[in-house]
Amino acid sequence: MRIEELKRGVDFDAAGEEMYALVAELYPVCRSITGRGFRETLARLSRHVDLARHDVPSGTRVFDWTVPREWNIADAWVKNAAGERLIDFRRSNLHVVQYSVPLRRRVSIEELKRHLHSIPEHPHWIPYRTSYYDESWGFCIEHERLAQLDEPEYEVCIDSTLEDGRLSYGECAIAGDTGAEFLFSCHACHPSLCNDNLSGVALATWIAKLLAPLRLRFSYRFLFIPGTIGSITWLSRNQHRTGRIRHGLVVACVGDGGRFHYKRSRKGADIDRAVEHVLRHSGAAHEIRDFSPFGYDERQYCSPGFDLPVGSLTRTPNSAFPEYHTSADNLDLVAPRHLAESLRRYLDVIEVVENDRRYTSTNPQCEPQLGRRGLYSPAGGVAQREPQEMALLWVLNMSDGRHGLLDIAERAGLDFATIRDAAQRLSSHGLLEPVADVCPDEAAGSAPDPARS
Amino acid sequence: MRIEELKRGVDFDAAGEEMYALVAELYPVCRSITGRGFRETLARLSRHVDLARHDVPSGTRVFDWTVPREWNIADAWVKNAAGERLIDFRRSNLHVVQYSVPLRRRVSIEELKRHLHSIPEHPHWIPYRTSYYDESWGFCIEHERLAQLDEPEYEVCIDSTLEDGRLSYGECAIAGDTGAEFLFSCHACHPSLCNDNLSGVALATWIAKLLAPLRLRFSYRFLFIPGTIGSITWLSRNQHRTGRIRHGLVVACVGDGGRFHYKRSRKGADIDRAVEHVLRHSGAAHEIRDFSPFGYDERQYCSPGFDLPVGSLTRTPNSAFPEYHTSADNLDLVAPRHLAESLRRYLDVIEVVENDRRYTSTNPQCEPQLGRRGLYSPAGGVAQREPQEMALLWVLNMSDGRHGLLDIAERAGLDFATIRDAAQRLSSHGLLEPVADVCPDEAAGSAPDPARS
Amino acid sequence: MRIEELKRGVDFDAAGEEMYALVAELYPVCRSITGRGFRETLARLSRHVDLARHDVPSGTRVFDWTVPREWNIADAWVKNAAGERLIDFRRSNLHVVQYSVPLRRRVSIEELKRHLHSIPEHPHWIPYRTSYYDESWGFCIEHERLAQLDEPEYEVCIDSTLEDGRLSYGECAIAGDTGAEFLFSCHACHPSLCNDNLSGVALATWIAKLLAPLRLRFSYRFLFIPGTIGSITWLSRNQHRTGRIRHGLVVACVGDGGRFHYKRSRKGADIDRAVEHVLRHSGAAHEIRDFSPFGYDERQYCSPGFDLPVGSLTRTPNSAFPEYHTSADNLDLVAPRHLAESLRRYLDVIEVVENDRRYTSTNPQCEPQLGRRGLYSPAGGVAQREPQEMALLWVLNMSDGRHGLLDIAERAGLDFATIRDAAQRLSSHGLLEPVADVCPDEAAGSAPDPARS
Repeated sequence: MRIEELKRGVDFDAAGEEMYALVAELYPVCRSITGRGFRETLARLSRHVDLARHDVPSGTRVFDWTVPREWNIADAWVKNAAGERLIDFRRSNLHVVQYSVPLRRRVSIEELKRHLHSIPEHPHWIPYRTSYYDESWGFCIEHERLAQLDEPEYEVCIDSTLEDGRLSYGECAIAGDTGAEFLFSCHACHPSLCNDNLSGVALATWIAKLLAPLRLRFSYRFLFIPGTIGSITWLSRNQHRTGRIRHGLVVACVGDGGRFHYKRSRKGADIDRAVEHVLRHSGAAHEIRDFSPFGYDERQYCSPGFDLPVGSLTRTPNSAFPEYHTSADNLDLVAPRHLAESLRRYLDVIEVVENDRRYTSTNPQCEPQLGRRGLYSPAGGVAQREPQEMALLWVLNMSDGRHGLLDIAERAGLDFATIRDAAQRLSSHGLLEPVADVCPDEAAGSAPDPARS
Repeated sequence: MRIEELKRGVDFDAAGEEMYALVAELYPVCRSITGRGFRETLARLSRHVDLARHDVPSGTRVFDWTVPREWNIADAWVKNAAGERLIDFRRSNLHVVQYSVPLRRRVSIEELKRHLHSIPEHPHWIPYRTSYYDESWGFCIEHERLAQLDEPEYEVCIDSTLEDGRLSYGECAIAGDTGAEFLFSCHACHPSLCNDNLSGVALATWIAKLLAPLRLRFSYRFLFIPGTIGSITWLSRNQHRTGRIRHGLVVACVGDGGRFHYKRSRKGADIDRAVEHVLRHSGAAHEIRDFSPFGYDERQYCSPGFDLPVGSLTRTPNSAFPEYHTSADNLDLVAPRHLAESLRRYLDVIEVVENDRRYTSTNPQCEPQLGRRGLYSPAGGVAQREPQEMALLWVLNMSDGRHGLLDIAERAGLDFATIRDAAQRLSSHGLLEPVADVCPDEAAGSAPDPARS
Repeated sequence: MRIEELKRGVDFDAAGEEMYALVAELYPVCRSITGRGFRETLARLSRHVDLARHDVPSGTRVFDWTVPREWNIADAWVKNAAGERLIDFRRSNLHVVQYSVPLRRRVSIEELKRHLHSIPEHPHWIPYRTSYYDESWGFCIEHERLAQLDEPEYEVCIDSTLEDGRLSYGECAIAGDTGAEFLFSCHACHPSLCNDNLSGVALATWIAKLLAPLRLRFSYRFLFIPGTIGSITWLSRNQHRTGRIRHGLVVACVGDGGRFHYKRSRKGADIDRAVEHVLRHSGAAHEIRDFSPFGYDERQYCSPGFDLPVGSLTRTPNSAFPEYHTSADNLDLVAPRHLAESLRRYLDVIEVVENDRRYTSTNPQCEPQLGRRGLYSPAGGVAQREPQEMALLWVLNMSDGRHGLLDIAERAGLDFATIRDAAQRLSSHGLLEPVADVCPDEAAGSAPDPARS
């Protein structure tokens, strides 16, 4: 089965519900860039896809960075004199600044307040804060509850460990007809936050699950990594592989109800044209943004030493929704139907990429006679032709070996599927011949894949 | 005489009337893509221009196509029981679907209706329909008259022949100083339809008639051909010649009162820039459209194996006026003044193409002193200069051998004639030298021309 | 001291007053393209900057032109029968058409009127007119006073000399680290006209005065020349030097209150991008215009044989303000604050040009860890970053050796200073390395400079 047939068969409503269920299942787990929560998350994803886990020891040098110590946390609280847990990790794992060092002692209210984070504009929400690379401790709290802290002293406990261990990430590889790769990357390091980025984790999992049984032109690689340090670590260990990456997308924030945003790759690439075409023909409002070196792991994939063709397709992007990095990014912010629509768009993009090939007309001089092949209505004189007939003419006219089907769709102002159907009909009549595909010598399996061993 | 002098001398009002008279003369003739009507049309054009007729036998292979059998028709009708001609070819040759096979028999009203074509939106008009490559028969009728057919049976007669014969086309070649060619192509296969395309036939004839006595830089070729199969046949027999074609225009729909439309060539060419400049400076509303593989014979000239620099300059283009391919495209739809204005625009384009040459300034370092040559007013200090003086400065500044006069006119925002006049004045003072012209080695006549032999 | 430090220290209000005082000082001097007035002007400028005067004899061939005879004038008048000076050079040097030949005789009112120039639309203003290359004489007069000339005969006196002499111009050269040059050119030949171009003369003088003590990357050259013939003469004598010119600006009309206009160089150059960036980030309305071969000496610098990267940054450009070339272009039209603002913009441009270098990231693969170097806030999770932090990311991401800091500023949408500061911080941490600079082998002083000898 190929992607276009798959798409026709997917029950998107059901897929939306299933992705949402996966988000809900993962929501309570306290993840960080290292630690047991991240590994538990990978273990749960492994029930859906064939996932290889890679563990990299603390202290490993990865380019300019060092893999940090592993952080785990069992409990944390701030108690008043009466012994009441005023701030309680067990109520929300967001209450503790990530990578807070172990601690248990009495602190004055003044000292405590220097370690508290809140959001005055959203007094009911707990912020999400981290301090991965700066040894410290802290709590995050609803702003409205700060006033309750009116005693002179509190007992503070952070029952965490920060010790040499491992950074883990998951990798799912699906072999296609060529070794040229389409990379999907999502950060899976955030604790109880749904849109950013359990939505991306669930969507990437589902795409991998759906693609696995297909006959594919490209090979596909899905990375479930901690943000920043994860992509740096992966790139550091896979430099030899990056030349194979023809297309890439960073998957994040795909569960909210906002319109789609596409952030282009740094260098401008086919993936940009494919996504923009899909969004333009989706019938819905959307935004296209140029690359900027702020956001998610595209920062690393698009660093000048790699400059990979990687963009990012989100709904509302990072920082642009008020619930971003707060306790309000919860199960109410994401919905099955939004996840389902995101899945549809991503599959649309994959359909374009899989089918965007170049052809040459076998009758380049003048048009071939379509009528006698039953491809064109024999009734002459009519003023208009159907889009399907126009698509045949466009594909024939532009198939000079230089223009791919996406070029033709853009030039013709027709959606990609109509153009691809025309190309398939013309090919079946011997009127088109495909130009040799990308890197046919890199057929999947012909080279050992260290990531799968 | 050169084109710019010709233009000053043409009586456009008279030319409009004469072209209209030619349209009116040709209107009653029943043309098709083959047959006596087409040849009679060529014979009438030969009274105005030196036209070579070429005949190609039925069955000749032309690329993917085959020259069809020759179709001729003497009469056709549908009679009721009373013997009245309810549909009558003698009233309008549009009543019969072109290439209808010979037929004479009684048919039931049900069978007859399966062979009738009408236009519900325009109940008074007869549509124009063809079936060149699918053996069948049919009649075209005013929609309002369908209801009159209320008898159970009718006698049907189509007194046509469909037999091996010839496809004919006309070719008029005018030699210029170089063998580089400007091609004008018009389809002359439509029966009683005026704007599409007797207007184009008449205009192309008039252009040829006016250019014939001129001293010309380019050689000119005018094709009067049946649509589609005619250009395919010509291209098939003239492949060796297509490399000479530097500019080309498909001439059609030039007699109505709509604004001008220019459809660009597939690859983007000098002819596009020339026409767009002329329309921009015409002072009238107009539209520019990118190439699309639907329309007239530019489909063949711009097929990927030829990709010639051929656009199409029309008034309202095909399919875009309601009378298109109906009996309402009659002598009322076209007017002498519209034909005259179209002639003017086409001559403007030819003037640009003939004069768009590159020069080098003989004083490239700083401006030459125009004042002492009487080219520039000696009174200094004035705030504004005349366009004629500005044109001198523009031509001198841009004549670095890379920019042609049309480039300069576009950059200066001045009309081409002003720039050309400036170049001529500067040349006459030795301040400009022409860059060697296109293909000077292909002087007309230096190579035998099979199309004229 | 470098330009960015200079800018922080300049008292722009005081500079505006001083430039205005220089304009006022030079205003009464009767300048022309040759003569004592021009040399007196140069002498006064020499009190501010190190100015070399060059004298070129009348009759010297300079490209297509010839250095004209030297014109000097002591007095001129038109007297009525009563001996009253109705038109009097001593009241305004604009009353005499420049280069009027010596004359003293009685003329009829009819003859006189053929030699009078006035402006009907502005009856109170005296026009400025010249006749450099056409031997004649004339007077300029307020239009409202023409009616007073009601006597049949007048006595006319022009006490001028037109004799072989010299054309003079001033040149100020400031050596930088490289021999690559930034050229500033202003015409200093106009008599009592303030905006055009004593404002430009004063501004160019002030820029030279401020730059002289600085450590500079580029060498700077300031030309104080008569319009047209001056730039032609300089170019004729300095052809060997023009290859060094990397940037250039024609300085004129910088004292009025109009918004800034930038006229691009002919070929498109870095100076265009620098000026446009500065104006875009100035927060004020402005206009960008493409090159045209009408205006000031950019006509010569951008003639096709030189095609130098020279634009023109003005406030209201020539011909576009009603006072242009009239007695209303006086000390009221220009103001200290406008001159000061112009100085600021010019220094902004110089700052960009001096600092627009290319770098390569020393950590091109993934981002370097800014946090541990104290360059990036360690608190993770926050939604927004400061422009200073964004600038660091932009500079790192784009510093691939191909993009300069101005490219990066444009791409990031940040002002140049923020990007330059980021580059300096990154360089000081060893995170950037400069790409070799323009022509380092042409260090100033390593080649003899004929213009200074």
